[in-house]
Amino acid sequence: MTAETVLDFDRTNRIGLDEAIFCAGKTVEQIGAILELAKARGAGLLLTKLTVEKLKGLSAANGDAIDYCAVSSTGFFGSVKPIIARGAVAIVAAGTSDVGVAREAERTLRHAGVEATVIADVGVAGLWRLTERLQEIRTHSIVIAVAGMDAALASVLGGLVSSTIICVPTSVGYGAAEAGRTALNAMLASCAPGLVVCNIDNGYGAASAALRVLSSYEQLRRSGV
Amino acid sequence: MTAETVLDFDRTNRIGLDEAIFCAGKTVEQIGAILELAKARGAGLLLTKLTVEKLKGLSAANGDAIDYCAVSSTGFFGSVKPIIARGAVAIVAAGTSDVGVAREAERTLRHAGVEATVIADVGVAGLWRLTERLQEIRTHSIVIAVAGMDAALASVLGGLVSSTIICVPTSVGYGAAEAGRTALNAMLASCAPGLVVCNIDNGYGAASAALRVLSSYEQLRRSGV
Amino acid sequence: MTAETVLDFDRTNRIGLDEAIFCAGKTVEQIGAILELAKARGAGLLLTKLTVEKLKGLSAANGDAIDYCAVSSTGFFGSVKPIIARGAVAIVAAGTSDVGVAREAERTLRHAGVEATVIADVGVAGLWRLTERLQEIRTHSIVIAVAGMDAALASVLGGLVSSTIICVPTSVGYGAAEAGRTALNAMLASCAPGLVVCNIDNGYGAASAALRVLSSYEQLRRSGV
Amino acid sequence: MTAETVLDFDRTNRIGLDEAIFCAGKTVEQIGAILELAKARGAGLLLTKLTVEKLKGLSAANGDAIDYCAVSSTGFFGSVKPIIARGAVAIVAAGTSDVGVAREAERTLRHAGVEATVIADVGVAGLWRLTERLQEIRTHSIVIAVAGMDAALASVLGGLVSSTIICVPTSVGYGAAEAGRTALNAMLASCAPGLVVCNIDNGYGAASAALRVLSSYEQLRRSGV
Amino acid sequence: MTAETVLDFDRTNRIGLDEAIFCAGKTVEQIGAILELAKARGAGLLLTKLTVEKLKGLSAANGDAIDYCAVSSTGFFGSVKPIIARGAVAIVAAGTSDVGVAREAERTLRHAGVEATVIADVGVAGLWRLTERLQEIRTHSIVIAVAGMDAALASVLGGLVSSTIICVPTSVGYGAAEAGRTALNAMLASCAPGLVVCNIDNGYGAASAALRVLSSYEQLRRSGV
Amino acid sequence: MTAETVLDFDRTNRIGLDEAIFCAGKTVEQIGAILELAKARGAGLLLTKLTVEKLKGLSAANGDAIDYCAVSSTGFFGSVKPIIARGAVAIVAAGTSDVGVAREAERTLRHAGVEATVIADVGVAGLWRLTERLQEIRTHSIVIAVAGMDAALASVLGGLVSSTIICVPTSVGYGAAEAGRTALNAMLASCAPGLVVCNIDNGYGAASAALRVLSSYEQLRRSGV
Amino acid sequence: MTAETVLDFDRTNRIGLDEAIFCAGKTVEQIGAILELAKARGAGLLLTKLTVEKLKGLSAANGDAIDYCAVSSTGFFGSVKPIIARGAVAIVAAGTSDVGVAREAERTLRHAGVEATVIADVGVAGLWRLTERLQEIRTHSIVIAVAGMDAALASVLGGLVSSTIICVPTSVGYGAAEAGRTALNAMLASCAPGLVVCNIDNGYGAASAALRVLSSYEQLRRSGV
Amino acid sequence: MTAETVLDFDRTNRIGLDEAIFCAGKTVEQIGAILELAKARGAGLLLTKLTVEKLKGLSAANGDAIDYCAVSSTGFFGSVKPIIARGAVAIVAAGTSDVGVAREAERTLRHAGVEATVIADVGVAGLWRLTERLQEIRTHSIVIAVAGMDAALASVLGGLVSSTIICVPTSVGYGAAEAGRTALNAMLASCAPGLVVCNIDNGYGAASAALRVLSSYEQLRRSGV
Repeated sequence: MTAETVLDFDRTNRIGLDEAIFCAGKTVEQIGAILELAKARGAGLLLTKLTVEKLKGLSAANGDAIDYCAVSSTGFFGSVKPIIARGAVAIVAAGTSDVGVAREAERTLRHAGVEATVIADVGVAGLWRLTERLQEIRTHSIVIAVAGMDAALASVLGGLVSSTIICVPTSVGYGAAEAGRTALNAMLASCAPGLVVCNIDNGYGAASAALRVLSSYEQLRRSGV
Repeated sequence: MTAETVLDFDRTNRIGLDEAIFCAGKTVEQIGAILELAKARGAGLLLTKLTVEKLKGLSAANGDAIDYCAVSSTGFFGSVKPIIARGAVAIVAAGTSDVGVAREAERTLRHAGVEATVIADVGVAGLWRLTERLQEIRTHSIVIAVAGMDAALASVLGGLVSSTIICVPTSVGYGAAEAGRTALNAMLASCAPGLVVCNIDNGYGAASAALRVLSSYEQLRRSGV
Repeated sequence: MTAETVLDFDRTNRIGLDEAIFCAGKTVEQIGAILELAKARGAGLLLTKLTVEKLKGLSAANGDAIDYCAVSSTGFFGSVKPIIARGAVAIVAAGTSDVGVAREAERTLRHAGVEATVIADVGVAGLWRLTERLQEIRTHSIVIAVAGMDAALASVLGGLVSSTIICVPTSVGYGAAEAGRTALNAMLASCAPGLVVCNIDNGYGAASAALRVLSSYEQLRRSGV
Repeated sequence: MTAETVLDFDRTNRIGLDEAIFCAGKTVEQIGAILELAKARGAGLLLTKLTVEKLKGLSAANGDAIDYCAVSSTGFFGSVKPIIARGAVAIVAAGTSDVGVAREAERTLRHAGVEATVIADVGVAGLWRLTERLQEIRTHSIVIAVAGMDAALASVLGGLVSSTIICVPTSVGYGAAEAGRTALNAMLASCAPGLVVCNIDNGYGAASAALRVLSSYEQLRRSGV
Repeated sequence: MTAETVLDFDRTNRIGLDEAIFCAGKTVEQIGAILELAKARGAGLLLTKLTVEKLKGLSAANGDAIDYCAVSSTGFFGSVKPIIARGAVAIVAAGTSDVGVAREAERTLRHAGVEATVIADVGVAGLWRLTERLQEIRTHSIVIAVAGMDAALASVLGGLVSSTIICVPTSVGYGAAEAGRTALNAMLASCAPGLVVCNIDNGYGAASAALRVLSSYEQLRRSGV
Repeated sequence: MTAETVLDFDRTNRIGLDEAIFCAGKTVEQIGAILELAKARGAGLLLTKLTVEKLKGLSAANGDAIDYCAVSSTGFFGSVKPIIARGAVAIVAAGTSDVGVAREAERTLRHAGVEATVIADVGVAGLWRLTERLQEIRTHSIVIAVAGMDAALASVLGGLVSSTIICVPTSVGYGAAEAGRTALNAMLASCAPGLVVCNIDNGYGAASAALRVLSSYEQLRRSGV
Repeated sequence: MTAETVLDFDRTNRIGLDEAIFCAGKTVEQIGAILELAKARGAGLLLTKLTVEKLKGLSAANGDAIDYCAVSSTGFFGSVKPIIARGAVAIVAAGTSDVGVAREAERTLRHAGVEATVIADVGVAGLWRLTERLQEIRTHSIVIAVAGMDAALASVLGGLVSSTIICVPTSVGYGAAEAGRTALNAMLASCAPGLVVCNIDNGYGAASAALRVLSSYEQLRRSGV
Repeated sequence: MTAETVLDFDRTNRIGLDEAIFCAGKTVEQIGAILELAKARGAGLLLTKLTVEKLKGLSAANGDAIDYCAVSSTGFFGSVKPIIARGAVAIVAAGTSDVGVAREAERTLRHAGVEATVIADVGVAGLWRLTERLQEIRTHSIVIAVAGMDAALASVLGGLVSSTIICVPTSVGYGAAEAGRTALNAMLASCAPGLVVCNIDNGYGAASAALRVLSSYEQLRRSGV
C-alpha cells in the first residue's frame, strides 16, 4: 500500500473549494506525508481539527511552517490567499464555549480570502445582547449561526434576518444536549423558515458553504443573469 | 382478578392533587368501570387523552355526564371546583398546533379551580408576537410554556421573565423534531436558567406542577414563613 | 382562548419569506380559520403537507379556491406571484419515490415567483443518469439535492458541482434507512465539502433557503461586493 | 474577535437570577478573562462544573479568591449574598453517589442567600430510610429530588409529598442507566403527578428553578392572590 | 417451501416448557396450519398476542375450539393442564393499563397448571395501596412485577420483599416512556438488588421464567440441596 | 417534471443484476407508469414490497400480467429467466414469521434463473431442528440466513458451516427486538467470523448479493484463474 | 451535609441480601467512610467495581483488610460467610473477555456462602465447546449465562436446559455491539422462552437474583409447600 | 476457574477459517496465556485490535515472536500460510483515515494466504480518483469497500462493478457520522443492489467473508455448477 493519500489538487477548479486536511482521524505520520506532498506541489493547505499534540509531533520544519490557531485547532500551511472580500459574512456565536467552532469558520474563510465579522456571546438567554447587534448582522448577506445546547439563537435569527443563514450546532452542553444532537435537531426542526444546517462542530463546513454561495453569486454575476 | 382499579380518593389530602384518569392505555370497559366507582363515591374526575371514539363507546348515561373538550381530549365527569384563583398562571403556546396541549393544561387547572390565561401562537419565528404580550405574561407568577419543534420559545421566555416557568414540549413537527424529543431536550438543555420540564404533550402534568407551586405557596402563607 | 392563530403577515418585509401554513399538525377547523384570516386580509398563502382528506374537509368555497398538487401535498390559496426568476435553481431527485418532496420544493419556489428546473431519478446506482445531466445541473447557481436511503447523490454532486447545494433527505427506504435519519446523517457527514442540509422531507425548507440565497445575491449586488 | 464574552450583569434585574459561569466548555484562559471582567465590575460570580485542574490553572490571585467545593465542583468568586431564607427548600438525594449534584444545588442556593436542608442516601431500595425522614421533608415547600439509575425516589416522593418537587436525574449507574437518560425519562414519565425535571446532573438548574418558585411566592404575596 | 412450521413437540421434555404460538408475526393462514398440526398430534397449545381480528379469521371449528381471553389476547387450544400448584406465584401490576400483560402471565401459568394470585393497581404513586397488600405478596416465593412508565413499583418491591422478583416492563405511557424502553431500563438499572427482567409487554416470558424457577425448586428438592 | 422515472435497463450489462422496482415508496400511478415503460421496451421486471392493495390499484391489464406472491409481496412482470442454476443457494429461516422475507429472496433468485432450497423454522430454540438439516445446508455454497428477534441462528450457522453466509435480519419480534435492529446488530456483532449482513427484511438484497457471488465465480471461471 | 451515607444493615433481614457497595460512582473518601461505618458495626461488606486505583487510594489499614480480586474488580471487607451451598449454580461464560463479569457473579455468590461452578469460553461460534459441557451444566438448577456481542449463547442454552437461566449481557465487542446493548436486547428478545436478564456487566445482580431463587426455595421448603 | 480460554483449533476444518484473537477485550495476561496455548500446540495465530501498549506488555519472547503492524493493530504469531491466491480481492478505501481498517483486512487475508490489492483514497468527493482505478478494480471478483462518514463510495461502486462487494463502515468522522453508525446504515440502505455489510471497523470480518466466498468458489468448482 504505497500511496495512502491522493490529494485532490484539482478540487478548486472543479468545485471552487481548496482541499483541506481533516486531521482528527489521521496519524502524525499521515499528516506529515500530506504536507510533503503539498510542499512538493507548492500548494497551500488548510488543516482542521489539528490538536496541539499532533502539531508538536510534526517535524520542526513542517511544524514551524504552520500558522496555528489553538482556539480553533486550525493551521495554515504554505501560502494563504489575499483578502478578496469583506463584509459579506457574519459569524454569530451564542456563547463563549462556541468560539472555537466560530473561529474554525473564520479561519477557513480567511484561508480562501474572505474576511468575516465575528460577533460572539449573543445567546438568547440575554436577548438584549443580540438585539444590540442586530442591525450590524443584517448588513451581511450571509450569516453563520453557531450555537450548542438548545440552539435557540438560530431560530431567533431566522425570524429577524433575511440573509442566508448557515447553522452550525456545537457539542457544547451536557446530558440532554446529547453532544450536539439536540442543537442539530433543533436547528433542523426550527420554527423559522429556510435555515440550513451543517454537521456538529463543523465550522469548516459552514465556511465552505458560505464560499459556495459567494462563488455561485460570482457565477451569476459573470453570466449577467 | 376482580378489582383491576383501586382509585386513590385520598390523593387530594395527601398531595393536594385529585386523581385523574389517563384514558390512553385503558379500554372503554375499564374507563366505564372507573366512572361507576367515582359515581358511587360521589367524586368528580378529570379524564385526559380521552378520544372521541372512546367517549362514544361509553354508556349514554356516563357519556352525557361528561363535559368534553375535543381540542384537548379532556373530560370533566361529575362536579368541578368553583374558581378559587385567577391571574396566577399564564399558558403560552408557540403555534396553533400546540393549542391542544395548552388547553389540556388549562382544563386541568380549571378542574382544580384555577383559571389560567392562555396566550397562543407567539412562537419566536415572529418575535414581535411574543414581545407584544410580554408585559401581560410577566404579571403571572407561573408561566406554562408549550412548544414543539425547536422549542426556542422556552429559552427566550426564560431570559425575559422571572416567573416560575414550566415547559411542556409537544410532538408537533416531523423528521428531526423526533416526535417531541428535540423540543424536550432543547428545553432541558436551555441556555436560560431555571426552566423545568414535563413529559412530551403532558399539559396535565404541567398544570399539576403549577398546582403544587400554588399549594406550596398556600402552605407557606399559612405557616407565616 | 379566542385567537389560536396570529398570522405573521409582516414576515415578508422582515425576512423576505411569506408565511406558509404547515397543515400536518392542524385540524381542518384550524386550517379553515386561517384561510378566512388570509382571505379577509387579501393575502395569498402556501399550504404544505395538506392531505387530500383535509382538503376535502374544508368548506367548498375554500377548497375550490385552492390550487392543489397531490404529489407534493401542497396548495396555493389566493394569488400567486408572477415568475420573476428562471434558471437559477435546479432540483435534483435521486429516485421516483423522492419526487413528492422535490415537487414540494418546486411549488414553494413557484409560489414565490421562482421557476425551478426539476431533474428526477438520477440516483448514483446508475451513475450515467447523473453524468448525462451534469452540464445542465452546473448552469444553475443553486442545486437542491433530494435523496433518501444512503443519500449518496448529495456527496457525488458535492464533488462535481461548484453551486450552492442544499440537501433534503427523504424518508424513503426502510430498516436501516431509519425513516430518513440515515440520509440526513450521511448528508451532514458528507465527504464533500460545503453541503448544507434541511430537515427530513422538508422540500419547503430547502426552497425557502434557496430564496434566502437569491435574496443574498440581491443584497450582494446592491452592495457591490 | 476581541470580546468573546459579554457578561449579562443585568440578568438579576430581569429574571431574578445572577449569571453563573458554566466552566465545562471553557478554557482556563476564558474563565480567567471572565473573572477579570467580574472583578472590574465588582460583581460576585458562581462557577459550576469547575474541575480542580482548571482551578489550579487560574492565576494565584484569582484561584485564591475562589471559595471552592470539590464535591460539587463549584466555586464562589467575590461576594456571596447573606442568608435571606431558611427552611423552604429540602434537597433529597437517593445515594452517596448523588451527593455531588445535590451539593451543587445546595451551593447555588446558598450563593443566592437561601439555605437548604440536605437529606442524603434515602433511596427506595431501603424505604425505611425515606419514611424516617418524611415528616421533615414535608415541612419544606420545595423539594429537590436527586437520583440516578431508576430514579424511583422521585415517584415515591411524588406520591407522598404535596410540595413543589423539582427532579434532577444523575448520571450515576451504568449500562441500562444510560448515563442518566433512564433516570431522566423515568422522572418525566413518572406515575406520580406534577413532577418537573431538569437536565441530567444539573443541580444548578434545579436550584435556579427553586429560586424562581421562591420569587413567584413573593410576587403572589405582593399581588395578594 | 412445503413446511413453513416445524412444531417443537419435544420442548416440554427438553426444557420443561410447552411450545406456545406467538401470533403477532403470523398470518391467519399460518396460525390455522399450526392448529391443524397440533390437532393431528392431539397436543394442546397456548396462543399469545392473538388479536380478535385474527381469531375471527380462523375457521369456525378452530376458532370455537379456542378458550379466548380478550384482555390478554391469549387463547387455549385443546387440553389444558389441571392445576398442580397454588400460592407460589403472585402477579403484581402497577396500573389498570398494565392488566392485559399481567393476565397474559396469569393465563400462561394457568395453561401449565399453576394458579397465580393477581394483585392489580398498586403503583407507588399511592403507596398505601401497595403496603396494604405487602404481607400477602410476601407469602409468594415468586413475584412477577408488571409496570410501565417509570416502573418504580419494581424497585420498591425489590427493597421490601425477599422473593424471586421477575419484572415485566409494559409499553404503557407516552413520550419519555418510550413505548416501554424507560420502564425496561429502570428495572434493569434498579437500585434494588437481584431483580431480573423480561422483554417489554412479555407476560408470557415472565410466566415461563416462573415455571423455570418452580422446576428449579423441584430439582433442588430432589438433589437435597 | 415530465419524466419522474429513468429506468436503468443497462444495469444487467453493468453489474449483472436486473433493475427491480421497490414499490413501497411509490404510488400506484408511478408503478403503473414504470410498467408501461418496461412493456414498451419488452423488458421483464421484478416488483418487491408490492402490497395487495397496490396490486389491485393497477390497471386490469397490468395487474393480470403480474405473477404475484402474497407471502413475499413480490411480483414478476413480463418474462422470467429460465432456470440456469440449482443447488448453489440455501435459504434458511428461523421461524414461521420469517418466511415472507425468505420467500422474497427465493423469488428474487428465481427471477434471475436461480432455484434456491428453502429450509424453514429451524431456529435455535429447538436446536435439533437445525442439526437435522445441517448436512443438507452444507451442500450449498451460499447460505442466506433469515432471522428476527435475537438472530442467534446466524451465529450458530456461522460456527458450523463454511459456506458464504449472507444474513437477513427481520423485523419479527417486539419490544427489545426493536423492529429488527437487534437482529441486525447481533448479526453484525456475531461471535462467528465472516458473516455479512443486509438491511432489515431485505430478502431482495440478500438474493442480489448471492447473484453477485455466483456471477463473480462465473467471471473467475471464465478467466481461468 | 453530615451523613452522606446511611448503610442499610437491616437489608439481610428484609430481603435476604447483604448490602454491597457499588464503588464506581463513589470517591475514595466516600468508600473509606463507608468502610469505617461497617468496621464500627462489625459488618462484612462486598465491594463491586472497585478499581485498583481506588483500592490503592484507601488507607493502608482498610486496603489491607480487603480480599481483592483484580479480574472481577471485587473486594471482600471483613468477614465472609462459610460455604453453605454447592452445586446449585453454574456460571457459563461465552468468551475469555466475559470472564471478569462471570467472576463478579462468582465472588458475589461466594460472599453469601454459595460456591458456584464456572464454565468459561463456551461461545456458540464453536458449538462443540458448549455441547461437551452440557450434561454438567444441566445438573445445576440455576444457570447464569454471561455473554457479549450477539449473546447467542443465551438462546442456545435456553433451548437445551430446563434450569432457571439468568442472563448477563456484557459490554464486550465494538461497533454494532453497542457497548452491550445488542447483547442485552438479544437476550430480552430471545427465541428461547423464559430467560430473564440483568443489566449490562452486572454479574453482581445476576448473583443476587440467584440468591433470591435459593432463598425463595428455602422459604418454600420451610413452609412445607 | 482454571481454564478461561478454550481455543477452537478445529475451526479451520469446520468452517475454513483459523481462529483469530480479538485483543480489545482481553488483558495482557489473557493474551499471554493464549499465546502459550498456541505455542504449545504449534499453531499460528492472527491477533487483531492489538494496541502497542498491550504488545509491549507481553513477555519479550512472545512479543518478539509477533510480526506486528501498527497501522492496522494486527499481529502474526507463529507461522503464516504461503501465498496461495492473488488478484481475486481488491480492498478499496475512501480516505487516508480508513487505511487502518483496510490494512486489517489485507493482513487477515495475507495470514490465510491470500494477497489482496489495496487501492486507497478514492472517495467520491473527488470522483476522478475512483474512475481512474475502475478498470483495475473490476478485474477483482471480490471488492472490499472501506469507508466512513457518508460511505457514498460503497453505493457508487455498487452501481459500477459486478463483483461481490463486501462493505466495511469505519468510525471515521464526527458528529452526525455517529462513530460509524451513519456509514453502516448508509451501506445497509444503499440504493445499489446486493451490497453486504460487516460491523464498523471490522476489516477482519470483511476478510473472513472474502475467504468464505473464495471457499464457496472452490465448492462450486468441485460440484461443477
